[in-house]
This record gives sequence, structure tokens and C-alpha cells, in this order.
Amino acid sequence: MERIFDIELKELKDKLVHMSRIAEKMIEISLCGLVERNKELASQVFEYEQEVNRLHIEIDELCIKLLALRQPIAADLRFITAAMKINSELERIGDQSVNISENTAIYLDHPPLKPLIDLPRMANITKEMVIDSLISFVNEDVGLAHAILRRDDEVDNLRNQIFRELLTYMLSDATAIQRALCLILISRNIERIADHATNICEDVVFMTLGKDIRHHMGK
Amino acid sequence: MERIFDIELKELKDKLVHMSRIAEKMIEISLCGLVERNKELASQVFEYEQEVNRLHIEIDELCIKLLALRQPIAADLRFITAAMKINSELERIGDQSVNISENTAIYLDHPPLKPLIDLPRMANITKEMVIDSLISFVNEDVGLAHAILRRDDEVDNLRNQIFRELLTYMLSDATAIQRALCLILISRNIERIADHATNICEDVVFMTLGKDIRHHMGK
Repeated sequence: MERIFDIELKELKDKLVHMSRIAEKMIEISLCGLVERNKELASQVFEYEQEVNRLHIEIDELCIKLLALRQPIAADLRFITAAMKINSELERIGDQSVNISENTAIYLDHPPLKPLIDLPRMANITKEMVIDSLISFVNEDVGLAHAILRRDDEVDNLRNQIFRELLTYMLSDATAIQRALCLILISRNIERIADHATNICEDVVFMTLGKDIRHHMGK
Repeated sequence: MERIFDIELKELKDKLVHMSRIAEKMIEISLCGLVERNKELASQVFEYEQEVNRLHIEIDELCIKLLALRQPIAADLRFITAAMKINSELERIGDQSVNISENTAIYLDHPPLKPLIDLPRMANITKEMVIDSLISFVNEDVGLAHAILRRDDEVDNLRNQIFRELLTYMLSDATAIQRALCLILISRNIERIADHATNICEDVVFMTLGKDIRHHMGK
């Protein structure tokens, strides 16, 4: 027979998955606004932010309630503390998507800077990392979590490449400066989202194995 | 008679205060490296980072141990979950200080861009916010926490002002572009540190009053 506590833990997991779907949507829409030069999409991102913020508080309350009422130990305790941390990461992914939309709004005040370089590619990889990090959480899949952690280098390389290319534009054409600057800031927002996805993966490894791999100290 | 648990909670508090001292030192030294054009200081920041990372893991372990062994409820439970969150914020403040040092290293490869504008002022306010946020935690001082939250606007205003000034430099002098870009990125690093300080304050309010003021929903 299933414990009531198991049903509650399932509820917690479902809420986090729901929140992650919204966060993923926010990444997608904020980038879509940039690629399609559509300012209207920003308002959708702000609406989703409200929902993410509401879930952030709700999930935190649920975690504290479960800690108080069920007095969990071992794997259950690690699950709930991981959930609290993943909750924070998802909320910050939402924040960064809002930042992307804000930087996009400034960018769209000017004529387009010809190519968006590798920004959409960087964003796609990052979105996949967020999606997969939640899959690794749901399935307690440590192998997947490690695979995602390795993909962070790819994002960092793209960030550096994008930076170099945009700097070259700026140096050769003063009218490109402001727009290139917006794109550099957007690339930093995307980079931070990837960082949050890697944080989630580290939480998943700790939750599953009880081993702390942060700062490479548990390796 | 003092409970063993109270001694353990005191130990947790002391560790966080110790960690915050190191994080404050990292902010100070990373900025000092920029102002005094001293690359050597960056290596000190990297050394402190090791210590912050070690404490990050140690404090998290202590929190999980206390949750498992003492099965806390109410104020004690809120204290421990707040401690876990503040622990993460301090670790990220350390990360941002490392980023400041990395951006400074690139900046120092070039001759100085005359004034550092309001960057040192912005960094000082931010460091004060971090220091005060830990005081508000130690003393459970909700009034102080709210005062710090209000100072975040000042930091955001400085960030905007610094951005406008540096953009003007870039537009008027192409040789200033790369250096101004470094300073813009540093101002964003400082801004993020201030954000972490405000997150700590929100954790303090929740811990003390059991009221969630994040996203202004508990207001």
C-alpha cells in the first residue's frame, strides 16, 4: 500500500515538473521574441513569470510542510531538500528569461544587426539542458545528469565565440555598438540559465547518490 | 539549560557568519584589484573561493544532518531551511567575485579607461548590503532586512547610470569599446551580488516572521 507521504512526494514532483514546463516556455518565447522581432511576446513572458513566482512560493511551502509533518530521513529528506533547491533554480531561470525579454525590447528599438550569430543555437542547447535536467530529476537518472553537466562547456564556448564576433562588429561599426551590447547581455542571460540547469543536475546527483559533486569535491 | 540542538544551531549560524566574512573579503579584494590595477589580487580571490566552496558543502551537510537528527518544527525548521538558502546565496556571491576578477584581468590588459565611474561606489553599497544582510540574519532583524531591500533600487540606478556613461564612451571612441565592455560586465556582476543580498533578506523575513515576502505576494 502506498504511504500518504508517497502521494505527497509525487505531488511535489508534479508541481516541479509543471513549473519547469513554464520555465522552458519562457526561454522559448523570450528567444522567439528576439528572432521574430516581436515585442508582444515579451508580455507573455511577464505573464508566465507571475505563474512561476506563485509556484515558487507554493512549492517552498509544501516542502516546509512535508519536513515538519513527515520528519523525513535519508532518501526522502534528500528528495525534499533537492526539491527546494530545484525550485529556486527554476524561479531564477524564469527571471533570466524576463531579462532576455527586457534586453530584447531595447534591441528591437533599433534596426536588426544582420545575423543573430549563434544566439538561437546557444538558447536551444540551453533549453534542452533545462528539459533534460528535469527528466534526470524525475527519473533519478544520474547518468543523464552527468551528460548535461558536460554540455555546459559547449554553452560556454558558444558564449565566448558570440562575444568575439559581436566585439568585432562593434569595433568596425559604431552604429552596431548598442545593438551588439544587447546581444552580449542576452548571451549572458542564456549562459546563466545553463548554469541553473547544471545546478539542478548537481542536486539530482546528490539526491540520488547522497554524494556531493559540487565544486568537484565529491569526485 | 541549553539544548544540544541550540548549540548545534549556534554552530550553524557561526559557520554562515564565517562564510559571509570570506565572501565580503572576496568582493573587497576583487574590486581592489580593479581600482589598484593589481592582477595579483585575483589569485587571492581564487584561494578564498576554495574556502567558500568547502564551507558551502560543509554547511549543507550540517543542515541535512540537523533536519534528519533533530526533526525540527516551526521556528527551528525555518531557521535551518533559511540557512540552506543563505548558504547558496553566499556561494554565488563568491562566484560573482571570481567573475569580477576574471573580467578585471581582461580589463587590465589594456591602458586604463580614465575614470572607473561609479563602479567602486556601487561595489561599496553592495558590500554593505551583504554585511548588513548577515547582521539581519544573526539578529533576526526584520527592520534591517527591509531597509536593505530598499537599497537595491540605489544599486539598480547606479547600474543604469554606469551603463549609459560607458555606452557614451564606446560611441565616441572605438578604442574604449573593449575596456568599457569589461566594466559593464563587472557592473552586472556587482548587481547580481546585490540581488543575492536581497534574497538573503527575504529569507531572514521568512525565517523570522514565517511570512513569504518574495515576489511581493506576502506583502
